[in-house]
Amino acid sequence: MTDKIIEFYFEFGSPYGYFAANEIEALASEMGRTVVWKPFMLGSAFAKTGSVPLREVPLKGDYCLQDWERISDYTGTPWSLPKKFPTAILAAPRGFYWLVDQGKDDLAVTYAKAAYKAYFADNRPLWTDQEAADVAKECGIDREEFLSAVQDKHVKSRLIEEGQKAIDRGVFGSPFIIIDDEAFWGWDRIAMIRDWHKQGKWS
Amino acid sequence: MTDKIIEFYFEFGSPYGYFAANEIEALASEMGRTVVWKPFMLGSAFAKTGSVPLREVPLKGDYCLQDWERISDYTGTPWSLPKKFPTAILAAPRGFYWLVDQGKDDLAVTYAKAAYKAYFADNRPLWTDQEAADVAKECGIDREEFLSAVQDKHVKSRLIEEGQKAIDRGVFGSPFIIIDDEAFWGWDRIAMIRDWHKQGKWS
Repeated sequence: MTDKIIEFYFEFGSPYGYFAANEIEALASEMGRTVVWKPFMLGSAFAKTGSVPLREVPLKGDYCLQDWERISDYTGTPWSLPKKFPTAILAAPRGFYWLVDQGKDDLAVTYAKAAYKAYFADNRPLWTDQEAADVAKECGIDREEFLSAVQDKHVKSRLIEEGQKAIDRGVFGSPFIIIDDEAFWGWDRIAMIRDWHKQGKWS
Repeated sequence: MTDKIIEFYFEFGSPYGYFAANEIEALASEMGRTVVWKPFMLGSAFAKTGSVPLREVPLKGDYCLQDWERISDYTGTPWSLPKKFPTAILAAPRGFYWLVDQGKDDLAVTYAKAAYKAYFADNRPLWTDQEAADVAKECGIDREEFLSAVQDKHVKSRLIEEGQKAIDRGVFGSPFIIIDDEAFWGWDRIAMIRDWHKQGKWS
């Protein structure tokens, strides 16, 4: 462990967030840092920036479909376009902070990775509470407690607050990576961060 | 020379296009390809995608300001935020195709690089016909002929047609790089293309 961190903001419904999630720990390890995982609801940021989901933008939507396929080819990260996409993924990020608030940070990260894999690699309906709870169970989390927690008003509020804190921090996309207060938006920037680190930027 | 090409679409008013323009020929050389430069008016594509200039987007606008500074630090490409930005840059791309249509492709590329440098490194008012013509003169182009050409209706139409062709091709941003019909959007992707080429993708 080190007290140097990489803040990793991501939306569970974001393909680029998913691809970055599969690379962020290797990057952090190379840099002698630990990752602080911060899921948030991208919809709140979109309301601020006036953005809409990528798939719904003419031209860009078609580009992204091809882009996700090839990032999978390029990185080896498994990929399958979810049956329902884009859609709101709520139980997973709520469950994440519910775990964190119990001091179970490592389990929360394990759950985040499993949830991403379920949605973007295994084509499971993560948008339902039931499926999000099934994934939780597979991670060794009590299924009924999880189901109850993700409908709890305090847990719901917690996620909304995290979204507001992200916006206050300047986060407007997924993934969004912050290293020593310097922000990097997009999966594409992982290569830049890696290369710049090798050149000694953060030494 | 090779008959393998990289199609390089760019908008003269685009910082990311400028940074890419400073790297695209080295990339092409590594890949044994030649660059076909294709300026277009990003505004036409934005009308299609509903996008607005980056600087005008909350959060994202501030991010970009910092991002351009650091890309300059990272790549060594000189950078200075233009006094008027964003703004329509018309004479430069019109002049570019006017040169191409005279068979002066190399001179057109020389002009494109000089115009980008004038606007984004030397803080010159490239948005005026007079300044665009001054840059042309510095490249050995007849200043009066250039000034007359960029107000010619056929030259104006030519640029509009190139913009439509770009949209028909799926181009929606700047820079936009096409290699064997595969599209890459953004300066960030140059590193990916380079790395993937080294891995043998286009061999």
